[in-house]
Amino acid sequence: MIEFELIHEDRNSHARAGIIHTPHGSFETPIFMPVGTQATVKTVSPDELKDLHAGIILTNTYHMFLRPGADLVEEAGGLHKFMNWDRAILTDSGGFQVFSLGELRKITEAGVEFRSHIDGSKKFLSPEISIEVQKKLGSDIVMAFDECIPYPADYEYAKKSTERTHRWETRCRDFFSSEATQALFGICQGGMYRDLRENSAKFLSELNFHGYAIGGLSVGEPRDLMYEMLSASTENLPLDKARYLMGVGTPDHLVEGVARGVDMFDCVYPTRVARNGMAMIHGGRLVMKNACFTHDFDVLEPGCECYACRNGFTRTYIRHLVRAGEIFGLRLLTLHNLYFLEKFMREIRESILEDRFDEFRKNFWEGSN
Amino acid sequence: MIEFELIHEDRNSHARAGIIHTPHGSFETPIFMPVGTQATVKTVSPDELKDLHAGIILTNTYHMFLRPGADLVEEAGGLHKFMNWDRAILTDSGGFQVFSLGELRKITEAGVEFRSHIDGSKKFLSPEISIEVQKKLGSDIVMAFDECIPYPADYEYAKKSTERTHRWETRCRDFFSSEATQALFGICQGGMYRDLRENSAKFLSELNFHGYAIGGLSVGEPRDLMYEMLSASTENLPLDKARYLMGVGTPDHLVEGVARGVDMFDCVYPTRVARNGMAMIHGGRLVMKNACFTHDFDVLEPGCECYACRNGFTRTYIRHLVRAGEIFGLRLLTLHNLYFLEKFMREIRESILEDRFDEFRKNFWEGSN
Repeated sequence: MIEFELIHEDRNSHARAGIIHTPHGSFETPIFMPVGTQATVKTVSPDELKDLHAGIILTNTYHMFLRPGADLVEEAGGLHKFMNWDRAILTDSGGFQVFSLGELRKITEAGVEFRSHIDGSKKFLSPEISIEVQKKLGSDIVMAFDECIPYPADYEYAKKSTERTHRWETRCRDFFSSEATQALFGICQGGMYRDLRENSAKFLSELNFHGYAIGGLSVGEPRDLMYEMLSASTENLPLDKARYLMGVGTPDHLVEGVARGVDMFDCVYPTRVARNGMAMIHGGRLVMKNACFTHDFDVLEPGCECYACRNGFTRTYIRHLVRAGEIFGLRLLTLHNLYFLEKFMREIRESILEDRFDEFRKNFWEGSN
Repeated sequence: MIEFELIHEDRNSHARAGIIHTPHGSFETPIFMPVGTQATVKTVSPDELKDLHAGIILTNTYHMFLRPGADLVEEAGGLHKFMNWDRAILTDSGGFQVFSLGELRKITEAGVEFRSHIDGSKKFLSPEISIEVQKKLGSDIVMAFDECIPYPADYEYAKKSTERTHRWETRCRDFFSSEATQALFGICQGGMYRDLRENSAKFLSELNFHGYAIGGLSVGEPRDLMYEMLSASTENLPLDKARYLMGVGTPDHLVEGVARGVDMFDCVYPTRVARNGMAMIHGGRLVMKNACFTHDFDVLEPGCECYACRNGFTRTYIRHLVRAGEIFGLRLLTLHNLYFLEKFMREIRESILEDRFDEFRKNFWEGSN
């Protein structure tokens, strides 16, 4: 069974250190989860993910649903066997991708009708279908089906959407039933309205999910508003369950998310900027195409122990690979960026355990300005 | 110093097993050399190349000359340090790429003027410049500057071109001077004319290069003609020097090349077909997009010990990755194809050492038809 073990709470904030146990191993929190949209974390191998200490990755139900299809993954023995990854996997519900399709979709109480971005064919996702698909995928953590409210949205829409999400999530919980090898997480919504956020967290807490996600944030709103809505959610969630802030992965958001009691994060950010030729370093990022790196024989970040840095691949060489359009350059940057965030989270965790997270947070904001 | 050590000659053919010693390690021949056009074997890491027992790779002088430039590579400490590869490297002369530019280039006795395929700027390569660039790159094996004669070409053109190539190669040898850490190979030409091929091999043998390549083959001519021209070349080359058949890498050509006394081969074939979604297997290749692999849970080739096969990545999964345009699929196929050829050459070598190469060759042709 999936279990969240709370190890330590920070004295000066809501930050917490924990461990999540799954049938595919345990991992320490707070954690950043690399995204493997199509059953592969773009450009890297499962071995390389282990080398950078990844304990859990995320895969997108929407993509698996359309290609190769949940039945095929089930026939292959589930996602873990399909993609050769024996550590934990979290699948989202498909809702976020479906709602991102805009004009291609139609929402009813039953679910969402949409057209495949691959071949334009008509598809339908509902709370029940999403759970059924995720059961076939065999992920360790299953997400309830919700609507990610766009920003901006007026109060009436946010309220109605959040209420429908609550009904959908109730259906998910009922349909999920007890399952020894998978956990079901609910997702808080509420748009950018404090009362809706508070109510959503309270309502879902009553449904007794195995864990709780905060959705609908980092969708274009100002930073302070995001942090306020995040607090309104986490402050109304049970302390003994894991909290997961969806789609967030820049260092500033990670620090502030942790400060507000978040345990898990995911984002395509580190892998996407890598494929755009950028390296994440303390205090910013390097645009590898820039001429300033032409004769720069340092590694991406001196002292870093990622595969690229510990093996001495230079900025000069990586710049060359990126300019030449070579895949190996994107691999090196992806490995570096994922390691950077993994190590960043490990440092955060250590600071929590040693009751000096407030200092870490202060240093972070001073250092990165 | 680079040295070719002849270990064993086959009783029934010209096939031979040897070892080539270089300042960056020794490797056994016959060998297939993976191509790292732009100082990276596309999609894979140096570690992965070592894992599949690669002892030498090829890098293209033309590409390095244009980007990032030979001076920068020299500043980085040479190609080995630049790309983080401490085993042997062979660089071609740039001639082949320049001549492939067609209308963009102009040949004179001095050398070849051409326009960069990257930015259209005017460039010039000559025998002396090619050698100078390759010295800066610091490759273990340097190739002389030649013209690769197109097919078809009339006798007069082939004769004149071959004679100019001979003058160019003489200039290369004179300019190269004695060099303790690099070897210079001459390249036989002669088009598709036996007498020109024979003369070219004889002429170059007199120049006493460290090794000899056979160029201008596999350019569109019928297979039997290629084999005839190859024999006309190798039969007139000294036995105590390595022979390298340029741009050849399909199993049939490898077997027939070895039978005619070739020690070294290179080709983009295994890496290029991998990126086109194809796996090389005994007797043919698999087009991974094909529907027949949808429910095929075998590895690419049962019994294969490449990274992809020994770790159990299935045809189903690789098909999914290829269809989804995922880089990891191209990586797995590249690793498999390179390993396939590496093992193929290893088996050929063993058969030579045990005086049963004729049997290997016979079985190959029977099995692959």
